[in-house]
Amino acid sequence: MDLIIKNGTIVTSTESYMADIAVKDGKIAAIGSGFPEIGAEVVDAKGMLVLPGAIDAHTHLAMPFGGTISADSYLSGTRAAACGGVTTVFDYPMQRKGKGILETVEERKGMCDPEACVDYAFHCIITDLNDGTILDEFEAAVDNGITSFKCFLVYKKERMMVDDATLVKIMLKAKEVGAITNLHAENPDLIDLNIEQFLKEGKTSAWYHYLSRPEYVEAEADKRAVHLAKSINAPLYIVHMADKEGLEAAVAAKMDGHDILIETCPQYLEFTSDVYKREDGRNFVCSPPIKGQESQDALWKAIKVGTIDTVATDHCPFQSYEKDWGKEDFTKIPNGCAGIENLYPYMLSAANEGKISFNRAVELCSSNPAKIFGCTQKGSLTVGKDADIVIYDPNKDFTISVDNMHSDYDHTIWEGKTLHGYPIKTFVRGNLVYDNGDFVGKPGLGQFVKRERRK
Amino acid sequence: MDLIIKNGTIVTSTESYMADIAVKDGKIAAIGSGFPEIGAEVVDAKGMLVLPGAIDAHTHLAMPFGGTISADSYLSGTRAAACGGVTTVFDYPMQRKGKGILETVEERKGMCDPEACVDYAFHCIITDLNDGTILDEFEAAVDNGITSFKCFLVYKKERMMVDDATLVKIMLKAKEVGAITNLHAENPDLIDLNIEQFLKEGKTSAWYHYLSRPEYVEAEADKRAVHLAKSINAPLYIVHMADKEGLEAAVAAKMDGHDILIETCPQYLEFTSDVYKREDGRNFVCSPPIKGQESQDALWKAIKVGTIDTVATDHCPFQSYEKDWGKEDFTKIPNGCAGIENLYPYMLSAANEGKISFNRAVELCSSNPAKIFGCTQKGSLTVGKDADIVIYDPNKDFTISVDNMHSDYDHTIWEGKTLHGYPIKTFVRGNLVYDNGDFVGKPGLGQFVKRERRK
Amino acid sequence: MDLIIKNGTIVTSTESYMADIAVKDGKIAAIGSGFPEIGAEVVDAKGMLVLPGAIDAHTHLAMPFGGTISADSYLSGTRAAACGGVTTVFDYPMQRKGKGILETVEERKGMCDPEACVDYAFHCIITDLNDGTILDEFEAAVDNGITSFKCFLVYKKERMMVDDATLVKIMLKAKEVGAITNLHAENPDLIDLNIEQFLKEGKTSAWYHYLSRPEYVEAEADKRAVHLAKSINAPLYIVHMADKEGLEAAVAAKMDGHDILIETCPQYLEFTSDVYKREDGRNFVCSPPIKGQESQDALWKAIKVGTIDTVATDHCPFQSYEKDWGKEDFTKIPNGCAGIENLYPYMLSAANEGKISFNRAVELCSSNPAKIFGCTQKGSLTVGKDADIVIYDPNKDFTISVDNMHSDYDHTIWEGKTLHGYPIKTFVRGNLVYDNGDFVGKPGLGQFVKRERRK
Amino acid sequence: MDLIIKNGTIVTSTESYMADIAVKDGKIAAIGSGFPEIGAEVVDAKGMLVLPGAIDAHTHLAMPFGGTISADSYLSGTRAAACGGVTTVFDYPMQRKGKGILETVEERKGMCDPEACVDYAFHCIITDLNDGTILDEFEAAVDNGITSFKCFLVYKKERMMVDDATLVKIMLKAKEVGAITNLHAENPDLIDLNIEQFLKEGKTSAWYHYLSRPEYVEAEADKRAVHLAKSINAPLYIVHMADKEGLEAAVAAKMDGHDILIETCPQYLEFTSDVYKREDGRNFVCSPPIKGQESQDALWKAIKVGTIDTVATDHCPFQSYEKDWGKEDFTKIPNGCAGIENLYPYMLSAANEGKISFNRAVELCSSNPAKIFGCTQKGSLTVGKDADIVIYDPNKDFTISVDNMHSDYDHTIWEGKTLHGYPIKTFVRGNLVYDNGDFVGKPGLGQFVKRERRK
Repeated sequence: MDLIIKNGTIVTSTESYMADIAVKDGKIAAIGSGFPEIGAEVVDAKGMLVLPGAIDAHTHLAMPFGGTISADSYLSGTRAAACGGVTTVFDYPMQRKGKGILETVEERKGMCDPEACVDYAFHCIITDLNDGTILDEFEAAVDNGITSFKCFLVYKKERMMVDDATLVKIMLKAKEVGAITNLHAENPDLIDLNIEQFLKEGKTSAWYHYLSRPEYVEAEADKRAVHLAKSINAPLYIVHMADKEGLEAAVAAKMDGHDILIETCPQYLEFTSDVYKREDGRNFVCSPPIKGQESQDALWKAIKVGTIDTVATDHCPFQSYEKDWGKEDFTKIPNGCAGIENLYPYMLSAANEGKISFNRAVELCSSNPAKIFGCTQKGSLTVGKDADIVIYDPNKDFTISVDNMHSDYDHTIWEGKTLHGYPIKTFVRGNLVYDNGDFVGKPGLGQFVKRERRK
Repeated sequence: MDLIIKNGTIVTSTESYMADIAVKDGKIAAIGSGFPEIGAEVVDAKGMLVLPGAIDAHTHLAMPFGGTISADSYLSGTRAAACGGVTTVFDYPMQRKGKGILETVEERKGMCDPEACVDYAFHCIITDLNDGTILDEFEAAVDNGITSFKCFLVYKKERMMVDDATLVKIMLKAKEVGAITNLHAENPDLIDLNIEQFLKEGKTSAWYHYLSRPEYVEAEADKRAVHLAKSINAPLYIVHMADKEGLEAAVAAKMDGHDILIETCPQYLEFTSDVYKREDGRNFVCSPPIKGQESQDALWKAIKVGTIDTVATDHCPFQSYEKDWGKEDFTKIPNGCAGIENLYPYMLSAANEGKISFNRAVELCSSNPAKIFGCTQKGSLTVGKDADIVIYDPNKDFTISVDNMHSDYDHTIWEGKTLHGYPIKTFVRGNLVYDNGDFVGKPGLGQFVKRERRK
Repeated sequence: MDLIIKNGTIVTSTESYMADIAVKDGKIAAIGSGFPEIGAEVVDAKGMLVLPGAIDAHTHLAMPFGGTISADSYLSGTRAAACGGVTTVFDYPMQRKGKGILETVEERKGMCDPEACVDYAFHCIITDLNDGTILDEFEAAVDNGITSFKCFLVYKKERMMVDDATLVKIMLKAKEVGAITNLHAENPDLIDLNIEQFLKEGKTSAWYHYLSRPEYVEAEADKRAVHLAKSINAPLYIVHMADKEGLEAAVAAKMDGHDILIETCPQYLEFTSDVYKREDGRNFVCSPPIKGQESQDALWKAIKVGTIDTVATDHCPFQSYEKDWGKEDFTKIPNGCAGIENLYPYMLSAANEGKISFNRAVELCSSNPAKIFGCTQKGSLTVGKDADIVIYDPNKDFTISVDNMHSDYDHTIWEGKTLHGYPIKTFVRGNLVYDNGDFVGKPGLGQFVKRERRK
Repeated sequence: MDLIIKNGTIVTSTESYMADIAVKDGKIAAIGSGFPEIGAEVVDAKGMLVLPGAIDAHTHLAMPFGGTISADSYLSGTRAAACGGVTTVFDYPMQRKGKGILETVEERKGMCDPEACVDYAFHCIITDLNDGTILDEFEAAVDNGITSFKCFLVYKKERMMVDDATLVKIMLKAKEVGAITNLHAENPDLIDLNIEQFLKEGKTSAWYHYLSRPEYVEAEADKRAVHLAKSINAPLYIVHMADKEGLEAAVAAKMDGHDILIETCPQYLEFTSDVYKREDGRNFVCSPPIKGQESQDALWKAIKVGTIDTVATDHCPFQSYEKDWGKEDFTKIPNGCAGIENLYPYMLSAANEGKISFNRAVELCSSNPAKIFGCTQKGSLTVGKDADIVIYDPNKDFTISVDNMHSDYDHTIWEGKTLHGYPIKTFVRGNLVYDNGDFVGKPGLGQFVKRERRK
């Protein structure tokens, strides 16, 4: 054996039990006790939880957006991931008019490969069907391990939006090839009307970012998308769900047997729209915006009863000076916040406080994204899987600050948040990459995750 | 007094009682008994029901559509109306790109005025904002008695569709000026996808008209429109509601206190989508198509419990030779059916059979459209209102045939339908226009109904 | 003509219009204008509203309850009714073990007849089937104009409760004979458990009256009763609905086509459970208790959209010294409050403020109770109906005080409530009984209302 | 190691993977590969599924009921269990008036212990509070590993029913001591009314068993029980859920965050009420009866989407001659059917056909009952748990017949049902008890399962 983690409490998505884990060649070789320790690195996890590494299913690294590029490179982003217990990162390459899927993905792979500190996978954003030829590429994309595509129902002016017809064509083709469609759902027409009105009235603070895309803006698109997916009987994964009404529609469809999957993000669970009234409200500007208390309550309830499938971050940080562009006009604020290093600690802390079980935290942050997106080697501490392992000290307190994060951004919306319990070690395929506050891995260790088709 | 109708049972939207009606100067002067009969035309309505004239809130006369013009002129259409107990007809002039509302309406008024056999009003269809200038005309339109506008969420290729943003702007402006927005709700993208698929597969019979726009196609647009109306807190009148799911969404919003009004049509209450499997299925082609049994049941239930507000016809007949254009290709069938003369007899017959009360039939076909659309002089047998009166023989059987209709079309989907009870006289503002099978009015009697703003 | 009311605005449940009313022999003889005034009492109602008299469908006069008798006799109760524009009062005689329906009713009729200042009808409360013989009496009861029966699902210890089986038998038999079942729905077991707990903990203030029968207590019984009525397809009238969840269940059944009728009371529309925290909280003690804001909001919404059918008072006042019995122990407070004189003014004032239309107020307080309970001569200003008429000054302000009420109680929960608009005259079958603050009728004028069977 | 099962596919409630299992001292010692085989029994499971033994959470062995005793003794019942892959059986001892919980349980334990072929646990049925003293025994019961109690809302005449107040007291006390309340929910009053009516009309066939307790009878009690549990915030486990409406209410409460658990049975998933029209309909008589297609569909949907928690059998067989007692009168048929040996094969066959996943079958039949009822050593193939293991051949076809069952009854409702895939070996704590068609265990091997408190 190469690595033995012993005396810890193994936490799966369904149970917690004491046993030792033996790792060989980057995979979990056995679970039991009394493994021969000679030649192996032995970690004593007494009093600790031993968890599968998290999978952040939603990040935007080195992403051109809002007139700039998101503040984390593949290197800094995946380094931060490692230090937060995330062992696989999903990034979102964006296909642009005239470009193909494979070339889009290959380009990003070329950027990511030498920098990646943890494993990585790609959802490919489709913005244009290129007169239908894009659909012909889906089969090849899936063969190459890209089994999820994403559409925007918003960003009309930015020409990233697809219309209903395009969305339906993509969902149908994705289903046909064993892939799934991810969707950012907001109604652009309502947003534009609101913005036009607010600018006319001189209402330009960050608070109007929220008011220009409040609950009903997201709900309309959520409901429409769910309806379309049901109509054509295709799977749909709604990203960063943030509002109650849309959530309810998605859950109702799910309970009716439709293949609707729901993701939310820690920022929607922790904050309410009140943050946009703060002086630094612009730093919280993301889309969809954080909603009111009623939505937060509904999201937590769905987290608890099991109807939300995943928690991911929508990590897309911008530097303070970039956020400041919108000091006088909310429409100029680059949309996005940091979170990649906070995801797992945040959800595990919620478990530690008793809001959910540790098993549920593992399910949301690791097992479910692995299953939904076909990462068959990930998401579970089971014999034969990749040894992506996090050791978690449930008694270690940790207060988030930009100073103790491992990213390149210069501020964080999580500043000052105190967590109870924190990861102390992260292994990627058996390699220690994070150790008690320090990044100890190296760029390029991370590998592309070739994913399986959905059945 | 000019006219006394005595010994009949007066039926209002809420009660039935025996009393005489005295008419003077085209208006109801008194209700009671023992009115002096000298100089008055006296009608003995013993054993008869005395009803307010119906208001057909949805017709398309002389309408350019589907490469031709609908088969009823203003003359033949309103003549048929009179003979079916309809004393006010709403027509739908259509604004076209570059044209204004008032010129659109005036043009149709010029056509209608010399021909109208019953009173008439206009909803104006908006297809283009003309860079916003159309909205500036709303106030004047309302001043001129046009207090309702209509949009299509469908007919994209025909360039009649408006997008969500335009719909919202129209609803907001309509609300501001005391008007209401009527809406034809179907999702064009889903229709186009289905049609494309069917044509590719050689599925071209009338049955595929239905399958290209089945329940979920209408439901999506209904739900979206209701959501938008709720979001901006504006009134919305959904025309020809034909599907259960959309109906339920509209009713839910209504029960939640929103100003959502719902119209359905007799064809959706009488037939199911099975008609499209018939040899003459093309004759039943209208949009939205007639749906399945579950939708019909839901519509009837809503008729009974009171959540549907109006029944109107969407009268838009085409001649057989025109319908035949689509014999080999359902996309070439002009969409629309006749109904203007069948509305009131059909609904009253349903009452006569005990499905609903006569009061409810009056409410659906007369009182409610009058109230919703601001026809303050219409819709009720009340002192001071226009003497638009129908005398109905509950014991007269009548079998509909194109031969006993008073329209210009050459076939009818209602052929062979036997009704129990039938109108025997129709008065428009005290003038007898229909008498026991015969049209006895004259073109030009009908007047434009200048409507009041909504409060 | 005996009486002419001219120049007023007649308000029906569906419209408002200017016309004169002519009354002869206690009935409305004609509506129109220019009636010959010779020999008639002529009332000029210029600027006034002319309304049908209200029907208070829920009162307990001279009712033995809570160890005493409710504070209004038939005389003082109906006198107060007249002064509040109520022209028909429904009282609730209670059948007791071993007694028959007819003898129960006749006994109360004997008490009421000489005292009644307005017309009156009886719902008969059934507390015991007398081994089934009571059911055999239903037919005779209906023949005698008693077409509604009432059950309690509560008051177990007081031996007034019926169990599910008895309720079902009563609903079935009532349906069979063309009657309807009224129901007071609360769950006694939950109440008793709560009371037991609170007394043990020394929690004895009026606030614990509410907490011992909060929203879920009423909701359980509402939902169960609605389920039972649906199961056997029988009509059900739920009295004094006060909670949101039960209301929603009843409305859902109604929208599903079931014959479920819903009554609420002004106290549930005006106050919230917070009143039980007041020093004089015991004066507000009634059952079911007044609920929280959410329920009040739901009741108002249902009032507005039309799903609540009637507003009645549950008038059952007790004197201050009787209420004081429970100063130290809420279980000793006699349950009930005054309201008979406040019903119509309260609801009309709500209309005057724009919360609802005057038509809706008329529907709730007059037309609907008349229809539901078979008072075919009441509830409408229509030719042929009883001339039960209220003249209402929409500009007269009125502040309720026990001093300006015409009842026998010595305090009122409505003390200090200012209303905008107030009745200035009440006619019962053409007889003036109330005139601008003064009772001008006489005991014994009121007649028993023999009601018709439901169809 | 004592036992090594190698080369099989291990199936957990969340995943399936290839690995070997090593067992020592009756517990799972390790999972991995390459375990030393010396001294161990080695089973080659190549091509087989390796599953945790099922837990039948609902059986009635040697149960006095309907004037007789259910046809399976503890011996024959648990023998059949073993042969169907059930390694733990829950039986229902019934407390009777005047008896305590512990003496009730001890008596049954005395009967069961020498006979049990698989492990066993007890839910204790409470029929009488013995003036409240029973509640004082709950703490001791839980200390003794009895952490679930059951009530009937039905069987009123049989004096097994509890009223709402008693149910609430039991739920509250159960919650307090870390136990849960199981409930059989049907409305006895409606049943009795229906039976009375049917007997009067001479309707006595088995079909009237169904019609006397149709969907609405169960739904009422389900909804009431869920409401009560929500009201007092206590956990509730509804046994043998068989109707759609009750299911929906329970699921809604669950989705709202309440601790409501739902069990259904194979007979409700396989048959519809049509079986009661069969000549041998009486053999299918159980309570609640099997419902219509709509309920079956709803149950399967809930099985698929995850809202039903467990599938158990309600095993309670009676011999043919006993069933025949009701040939002429359905009320004389002893209620109950066999199923203990069919549970796991039936659900796994459903998985094999693709209706659900094998993981979900394991969750429903093993992992969930273990978790819900505190069997911390059971329900999962995890290191440290009891080696309750089933080896399943997915390619073996099996047709159920009373001849190949291992029970004492003389007929089965499952006669002729062909299953795809079948268990070939069952181990109880490492002991082989069933081998390819034959029972190879021995009475007395089964041990009492002392369960943990709920958290």
